[in-house]
Amino acid sequence: MQKDLRNPMKVEFNNRVDYCVGTGRMGLALQKEYMEQLKLVQKEIGFSHIRGHGLFSDDMAIYQEYEDRKTGERIIEYNFTYLDLVMDNYREVGLKPFLELGFMPKKMASGEQTIFYWRGNVTPPKDYSLWCDLVVATLKHLMDRYGKEEVLTWPIEVWNEPNLPGVWKGADMQEYFRLFEETFRAIKALDPAFRVGGPAICGVKDEFWIEEFMKFIREKKLAVDFITRHHYTTGQHDFNGHYTYAPLEDQEFRFNNLHSTRTIVDSFEEYKGLPIHITEFNTSYTPNCVIHDTNLNAAYLAQHLSRLGDDNESYSYWTFGDIFEEMGVPYTPFHGGFGMVANRSIPKPTFHTFSFYKKLQGECIWRDNDMIAVKNEDGSIRIVAWNVCEKEEERKDKEISVTLPLAEGEYSVVKQLVDEESCNPRKIWHDLGEPSSLSDEQAELLRRAALPFISSERIKAGCDLTLTLKPNAVIYLEVRPSVMTSDRGFRFDH
Amino acid sequence: MQKDLRNPMKVEFNNRVDYCVGTGRMGLALQKEYMEQLKLVQKEIGFSHIRGHGLFSDDMAIYQEYEDRKTGERIIEYNFTYLDLVMDNYREVGLKPFLELGFMPKKMASGEQTIFYWRGNVTPPKDYSLWCDLVVATLKHLMDRYGKEEVLTWPIEVWNEPNLPGVWKGADMQEYFRLFEETFRAIKALDPAFRVGGPAICGVKDEFWIEEFMKFIREKKLAVDFITRHHYTTGQHDFNGHYTYAPLEDQEFRFNNLHSTRTIVDSFEEYKGLPIHITEFNTSYTPNCVIHDTNLNAAYLAQHLSRLGDDNESYSYWTFGDIFEEMGVPYTPFHGGFGMVANRSIPKPTFHTFSFYKKLQGECIWRDNDMIAVKNEDGSIRIVAWNVCEKEEERKDKEISVTLPLAEGEYSVVKQLVDEESCNPRKIWHDLGEPSSLSDEQAELLRRAALPFISSERIKAGCDLTLTLKPNAVIYLEVRPSVMTSDRGFRFDH
Amino acid sequence: MQKDLRNPMKVEFNNRVDYCVGTGRMGLALQKEYMEQLKLVQKEIGFSHIRGHGLFSDDMAIYQEYEDRKTGERIIEYNFTYLDLVMDNYREVGLKPFLELGFMPKKMASGEQTIFYWRGNVTPPKDYSLWCDLVVATLKHLMDRYGKEEVLTWPIEVWNEPNLPGVWKGADMQEYFRLFEETFRAIKALDPAFRVGGPAICGVKDEFWIEEFMKFIREKKLAVDFITRHHYTTGQHDFNGHYTYAPLEDQEFRFNNLHSTRTIVDSFEEYKGLPIHITEFNTSYTPNCVIHDTNLNAAYLAQHLSRLGDDNESYSYWTFGDIFEEMGVPYTPFHGGFGMVANRSIPKPTFHTFSFYKKLQGECIWRDNDMIAVKNEDGSIRIVAWNVCEKEEERKDKEISVTLPLAEGEYSVVKQLVDEESCNPRKIWHDLGEPSSLSDEQAELLRRAALPFISSERIKAGCDLTLTLKPNAVIYLEVRPSVMTSDRGFRFDH
Amino acid sequence: MQKDLRNPMKVEFNNRVDYCVGTGRMGLALQKEYMEQLKLVQKEIGFSHIRGHGLFSDDMAIYQEYEDRKTGERIIEYNFTYLDLVMDNYREVGLKPFLELGFMPKKMASGEQTIFYWRGNVTPPKDYSLWCDLVVATLKHLMDRYGKEEVLTWPIEVWNEPNLPGVWKGADMQEYFRLFEETFRAIKALDPAFRVGGPAICGVKDEFWIEEFMKFIREKKLAVDFITRHHYTTGQHDFNGHYTYAPLEDQEFRFNNLHSTRTIVDSFEEYKGLPIHITEFNTSYTPNCVIHDTNLNAAYLAQHLSRLGDDNESYSYWTFGDIFEEMGVPYTPFHGGFGMVANRSIPKPTFHTFSFYKKLQGECIWRDNDMIAVKNEDGSIRIVAWNVCEKEEERKDKEISVTLPLAEGEYSVVKQLVDEESCNPRKIWHDLGEPSSLSDEQAELLRRAALPFISSERIKAGCDLTLTLKPNAVIYLEVRPSVMTSDRGFRFDH
Repeated sequence: MQKDLRNPMKVEFNNRVDYCVGTGRMGLALQKEYMEQLKLVQKEIGFSHIRGHGLFSDDMAIYQEYEDRKTGERIIEYNFTYLDLVMDNYREVGLKPFLELGFMPKKMASGEQTIFYWRGNVTPPKDYSLWCDLVVATLKHLMDRYGKEEVLTWPIEVWNEPNLPGVWKGADMQEYFRLFEETFRAIKALDPAFRVGGPAICGVKDEFWIEEFMKFIREKKLAVDFITRHHYTTGQHDFNGHYTYAPLEDQEFRFNNLHSTRTIVDSFEEYKGLPIHITEFNTSYTPNCVIHDTNLNAAYLAQHLSRLGDDNESYSYWTFGDIFEEMGVPYTPFHGGFGMVANRSIPKPTFHTFSFYKKLQGECIWRDNDMIAVKNEDGSIRIVAWNVCEKEEERKDKEISVTLPLAEGEYSVVKQLVDEESCNPRKIWHDLGEPSSLSDEQAELLRRAALPFISSERIKAGCDLTLTLKPNAVIYLEVRPSVMTSDRGFRFDH
Repeated sequence: MQKDLRNPMKVEFNNRVDYCVGTGRMGLALQKEYMEQLKLVQKEIGFSHIRGHGLFSDDMAIYQEYEDRKTGERIIEYNFTYLDLVMDNYREVGLKPFLELGFMPKKMASGEQTIFYWRGNVTPPKDYSLWCDLVVATLKHLMDRYGKEEVLTWPIEVWNEPNLPGVWKGADMQEYFRLFEETFRAIKALDPAFRVGGPAICGVKDEFWIEEFMKFIREKKLAVDFITRHHYTTGQHDFNGHYTYAPLEDQEFRFNNLHSTRTIVDSFEEYKGLPIHITEFNTSYTPNCVIHDTNLNAAYLAQHLSRLGDDNESYSYWTFGDIFEEMGVPYTPFHGGFGMVANRSIPKPTFHTFSFYKKLQGECIWRDNDMIAVKNEDGSIRIVAWNVCEKEEERKDKEISVTLPLAEGEYSVVKQLVDEESCNPRKIWHDLGEPSSLSDEQAELLRRAALPFISSERIKAGCDLTLTLKPNAVIYLEVRPSVMTSDRGFRFDH
Repeated sequence: MQKDLRNPMKVEFNNRVDYCVGTGRMGLALQKEYMEQLKLVQKEIGFSHIRGHGLFSDDMAIYQEYEDRKTGERIIEYNFTYLDLVMDNYREVGLKPFLELGFMPKKMASGEQTIFYWRGNVTPPKDYSLWCDLVVATLKHLMDRYGKEEVLTWPIEVWNEPNLPGVWKGADMQEYFRLFEETFRAIKALDPAFRVGGPAICGVKDEFWIEEFMKFIREKKLAVDFITRHHYTTGQHDFNGHYTYAPLEDQEFRFNNLHSTRTIVDSFEEYKGLPIHITEFNTSYTPNCVIHDTNLNAAYLAQHLSRLGDDNESYSYWTFGDIFEEMGVPYTPFHGGFGMVANRSIPKPTFHTFSFYKKLQGECIWRDNDMIAVKNEDGSIRIVAWNVCEKEEERKDKEISVTLPLAEGEYSVVKQLVDEESCNPRKIWHDLGEPSSLSDEQAELLRRAALPFISSERIKAGCDLTLTLKPNAVIYLEVRPSVMTSDRGFRFDH
Repeated sequence: MQKDLRNPMKVEFNNRVDYCVGTGRMGLALQKEYMEQLKLVQKEIGFSHIRGHGLFSDDMAIYQEYEDRKTGERIIEYNFTYLDLVMDNYREVGLKPFLELGFMPKKMASGEQTIFYWRGNVTPPKDYSLWCDLVVATLKHLMDRYGKEEVLTWPIEVWNEPNLPGVWKGADMQEYFRLFEETFRAIKALDPAFRVGGPAICGVKDEFWIEEFMKFIREKKLAVDFITRHHYTTGQHDFNGHYTYAPLEDQEFRFNNLHSTRTIVDSFEEYKGLPIHITEFNTSYTPNCVIHDTNLNAAYLAQHLSRLGDDNESYSYWTFGDIFEEMGVPYTPFHGGFGMVANRSIPKPTFHTFSFYKKLQGECIWRDNDMIAVKNEDGSIRIVAWNVCEKEEERKDKEISVTLPLAEGEYSVVKQLVDEESCNPRKIWHDLGEPSSLSDEQAELLRRAALPFISSERIKAGCDLTLTLKPNAVIYLEVRPSVMTSDRGFRFDH
């Protein structure tokens, strides 16, 4: 196919790829391997925020309630030892938290229902004032330690996926609204400059929940700062042993779903244009779905990222890495985890989709279902292109011929290629026999095999560029004005 | 007091200070702060082995048992993902594990009884063959990953403190013997070169247990490789809020207790001289006893270390650091934890007692209740001296005048001093207001305040050295032959 | 003596201690040990600029002139390979250069005269247009590589100490003025936003030079951006072998000398208030004067730093470290080098004088010949005090009793002490026999012995603080409001 | 072509690829960038020794001779400050020096003749006793600092290339013999356990020199420990600007030349079998020959390394990195330097030839002009294959079909490919416009583009492997027995 970029489209491309990234539960940020993966992600991509569950879950040990051994008196205390370690770790790699308030400390809970291998309690508080005290005390502590100015820049989301009965007892909407209102008012009483939002729903009865939530906040006159929702893009999951398998859904179908949230929110006059954050997204929503580790995932998301900013303020990939325990401890490095990075710090293909988008800075001059291009004032052009081939019969090379809007002169073109043959560590690992324990040597081999293939050429204004994308390829191109500055006597081709 | 080292004592000083060190539970070795403390300990002291609980506890996630979702079939699997991370972490800092087999995976347990904040199940297996399979599979996996030769050098201890009803259900001796025998035979069947020992008891009915254990292994003809026991040296604990307070016990009394174990073991002809490892020791046995952070602790142990090798093959300080969760997450950096290192990597006074002993290499020429001295072939002499003052009325300076066995010539003397005024980070922290959250600046200040005070002098053979020890001081001296090699024209005193 | 800080002085204390630091010659910044010392300095003190000689000297290899091997044609080329490495190294530790233009590339020089072990050519250019081309090409290259905005913030000084015949041939004033004018005009033609100054003189006929320079620039209408001079404070040097020995000069005498420069500059109406940078200062001006390594140096400079900002925009200590080759390669770690840091990264006492002043942020409330104090909005007070004792008969302790302006409440006081007994690595080294080659163990010992002694106390508003300063002591105090926040059940004194 | 490895050749393959590597001059080891390149080389390849020039050249500042300023007395001193830094740096990366004694300190020299940009004096000593004293003092110092046992393992070579008039004044053979004998006897007098050799000649009149040297040592009854020579493999050099261009010589021709040295040495009965070290080798002998940076260089040397051990004890590639100043400071990263690593730590193709050979451990089962293969006891096979195409008309793909001697079962095959398309950083750099100053982003891009392309497959015993080598390709293959250990429920191809 032929694309002439000299006639640029008018596209509002809102690149928020680096705003936020997801992580399992907060307590995992104490871990060394977790931090190594996060360091890698921050070095190559560099997010500004991180969002995860379990701030108030028992492994963080913040809420303490018991009877004094001597006096029998009921004592409530807060322990911020691990919270400090977690926040220090985040800050060490340049991250601010996007705070998710949840789940319920066991001692504060009204019930026993838990979720996940690590048992987050998902019942309402036995006493809402205990909950609000905990929220306020935690925010105060953070302001003391990290400075008020700083902490006020951390967005706050109330709970996670209350529309699912496994994540909020009974998916009880009215109870969630109460939780939201109490929490919202408590935080704003502490400092009205905090930005607070919800309802953090995922895709079950989502439109109904959004609609009701909007009505509720309008009725209660809550000046909510933003709306949050989740976004996953696979159909029915098939289970087998430790794994799930799921087909991808049509991209337009998924974008429409996002757009309907925008429409609902905007239909409330008082909240028109309120920012919507996708506080979780990925293809599959299970942490053991093999698709996550594939080049298909990378290619599908390459197309997705080109439009996620259209209706949303941000979109947080769930998750940056594979230290994650919702369904237990994984058995192998390529176990279908959510992460961009497999355990032992091996980037998966999707990692590069993000790093490529991170470089996509400038004015958007082209966007369609095959590629996106931006142009900068220095005359350089950056392109991401993809070739999604999910089904066997779709597996074909895609050839794109691009005419670039270049001023007279010479240009260097650097191409970074991620496809099943050139950047597919899972394939190498398979050929090694799918070992569950990697030797250091194997881990190093896989890390290297996980880098994009780099090639280059020089072109002159006027030439077309031809991109050949094998199945599930993602390509990043950088075209820059380049004067040849050969040293005296140097002949490259000799 | 006057000590003339020119008439050396004949002392068999068995310095095994660097053989082994303790750690909370294995799973904590996944943590970043834990590893930072361990790195510090290894850099300055350098142990060869590490021993901790919880190899088979649920957070390590090794033992997996469930019904298949589809077939309903009962499945048993082993997951070594975290075990590998832990062992890799240990090896990265030069440590071998001293393996303690325990506690019981919940799914394999015969009961519900647990111990500690982190809930180690302390009941016998519901089926001993499951247990033996797990032990053997784990050892096989370790041999695959780290090499047979290497893994055979790792000592193996069966369970922990079975003589306490909280740590082994009912403190059931016969059940423990069964566990020991089954485990011992299973391991030796895998490879007879493994070294396996027990019974890892601590100080309740200890002599009775040792005696019975010896009879048992003799009767069963088990060629046990070593005996293990624990050793704590405080009396009755007083509780107050998060803390305990306890008086020290008389050192001779404690040494006698150790010696009685030696005597019992040696009374069994077949096992005479069998190595005895103290696989845990400290002053107090509670992880919140304020004594652990004091200079008193350092001084008391300075005397203790001078004799622990007399009857024992090794003695493992419980524990190297303060990432430790047996009684929950600590609230402050100086919370009376077992560690040589406080959280935020601040060495406690006791840390230096160990680093001083580590340097005490050579032939022992003096040992009494005030000091110990060794001499090397190069003519250098190293001394550790201490002044234990527990009670207010005992707080007096101690002055020691030492006559050294020096050949003609000049010597440099370098003194490292740890006492309440010169190396007492807990005191600085107190004066800062006892903050629970340290700022980075405070943490750095405390790390610096936690270094020994260094001074030096030059002496000639024939002079006496005078050591002044303030209350709870520990001093390390290095006296080395030293020729003055002033550069041309250099005058120090000008 | 008694000082009541409740009646604060009105002092304009211009703390520019961290603006600039000196370094031998640029090419040394390629070295690993040099960079380790610089990293230490930047971590603890953190300067913003660095100034050294030899940008254009032959080891930097920038200026290349020769005949082509084949054609015989004369070729001039610039090689920026090492310049890039040097600048990258500086930027890696957060430093901007304070560019000194000099010395003369051998091939561009009009004569053979050189200075230093490393042979900087100190003669005028054989052709001024060659020189200006070199300067302009170098600045252009730097702008290309580091960005125009950034490079325009780097001050530029023309040559070094032209008033000394060893450093500028014949100390030829008119020739220097020509160099200055040609250079100044060439740079301003490239970009008038560059800040350019001179004449970088040191203390011989200095007032005459300043006066003439001011007349010259007025006459030529050169809008010079700043004036530069050097400042050393010792009298006649005595030589012995590799070393020199020199007495300190009276501080008032030296301050008067600085003030006279200010007066001269201000007497030129057009240039009134022009910034004056001391682009070099230290006690002795020889790189082998034993005083540099002493506590005396630290104490003398503590007084000096309290007033250097009075007449000057900045003052650049000559030098940060002891990788320095003007008189050859030093034989021992404590060879009287200029550095704040001795080789093997051992801080000298003077290092701490700088790190203490770096912390002296706030409003100055006291300054006299014994101490200086600042106060901050949070109620904290910071004090530096000193006790200069150069001669044997002056060696006395100084006791200062300070009444602080504290609001009601409790305060923590942290004291950092540097004196001959507590922080004097040179003394330990002497006692070790003055070894020229340090073992790793000795180097580590000396680094530790080079840290200030830290102590603390708690006071209440209304109490006096008593400071005891032994000879040549420098003390830093931080007094901060501090609420005691003891954890439940914790008793420090138990 | 078809190769059946089931009928193994009997080849004595003496893989000494990691014994020694070359470096410019010792003083460069003080540099940071030098050490970064060396660290990379040691991490990936891991040599045991390093050999370079200039131990006694003036930048190392060891030999000091002057008149005392006061007494006028002539003083000789040794300064080991930089020597210690250099040796510490080597040891930090696990290297021992292969000591080359030279060149002449200026103050000890009998003449003024120098070599290289950095001016090594190449004249005999003015007094041989001064020279011998220097050698002995230096060795003594090294023994003091690093231990006698250790230093005795460092081979010692007397001077460098005395058969070239530019490197030893007049290429005076008798004078060299004198130097050799005096030095040899002085060292053996210090300790006869030192291993000392020569004559370090390169390829001019080389056979004559070897012959005469053998006669000389026989006559003088010198029990020389080894013979040294150099080895370069290009013909006539063409000059252009900063660069040279040279054709490669026939490999057999070069191997014959090496063999003749072996024959000569063995013809002396007393020295038969004496080890011969090639203390320098490379293709071109100029540090600006473009060939060094090419894939052609890598492929040519792949063949060469397969046979260099046949007649020689070791062969030291000249040099590991591109911090090198013999012809001045290079202008660009790809300037044809000797290094395996280009400046900014970019591996050149030849780097991988070495890292592949490093892995070639085991019993050699095949060696011809296309490839070499080794087999290990665990059944694994490792292969290096190459396709040297120097001239345009030789540029053809080479296809090799290999039948492997595999026991029944499955195998993983991992292929690492280095060719002009997949691992050619110089080509990317060319397409970027051949910038002399790399931005950090460009440097990172080139480092990544400098990694081998990794692919894999699984095979069964009985299948042939087909290798396709594009022009100047080097391929490394690892074939290992591999059982597929898929996790329960995991299907790779789904």
